[in-house]
Amino acid sequence: MKKALTVPLIALAATLSGEAHAESSAQPVVRIAQLEIDPAHLESYQAAVKEEITTSLRVEPGVLTLYCVADRDRPNQLHFFEVYANPEAYRSHIASAHFQKYARLTQSMILSKRLIDTVPVQMDAKTGDRS
Amino acid sequence: MKKALTVPLIALAATLSGEAHAESSAQPVVRIAQLEIDPAHLESYQAAVKEEITTSLRVEPGVLTLYCVADRDRPNQLHFFEVYANPEAYRSHIASAHFQKYARLTQSMILSKRLIDTVPVQMDAKTGDRS
Repeated sequence: MKKALTVPLIALAATLSGEAHAESSAQPVVRIAQLEIDPAHLESYQAAVKEEITTSLRVEPGVLTLYCVADRDRPNQLHFFEVYANPEAYRSHIASAHFQKYARLTQSMILSKRLIDTVPVQMDAKTGDRS
Repeated sequence: MKKALTVPLIALAATLSGEAHAESSAQPVVRIAQLEIDPAHLESYQAAVKEEITTSLRVEPGVLTLYCVADRDRPNQLHFFEVYANPEAYRSHIASAHFQKYARLTQSMILSKRLIDTVPVQMDAKTGDRS
């Protein structure tokens, strides 16, 4: 059976108010990133980012979602969708040893990077069926 | 306590194989959309898309994730991240009465639309704490 994922989406929905620009520890951070990877290093980059995502979700309570997908027609164009519990969780993530390792490893593989800070409009998801 | 969301992400991970281009009912559809909304109709558009997302998640078993977020600095630039269980679920969604209603209502409010078909690299998320 699929269930609606209600928390932390309820918290996310709260950011829809006009105060969404203010930084507050109660507000999740929802970020999009668009990266262009050097095609010659795409495999190495993917290995590094997979490890970074897996580790972050496992050890950081404030890292709620890290999605990395590739443009089907241009596989070196990667899109990230990231949700952190609050600004402190985001800062802690960036400072973590595993993120720093990823950043060091991949710095020379990234041709361009665009970061987009966002405000949720509506974010609904089903959880998986573990039964 | 947060738990790792393992299903349907396990299914998503399967699309990483070289066969990701082939359409198969076993493969999820992961799609990004970038929409520019007429600022004069942004409020009406948001109301329509919120209803469409809520209804889709509630009544369509194959609609797994619909995230809509706005660029914080350009709130009429919307980014969608969508996951469907398989191509059939996506087609069924597009054909649904609630999607058709949304499409009819919002057609004139959308200044531009870019759709990007993607292949997952790594998609990890925590589920909420309902305890």
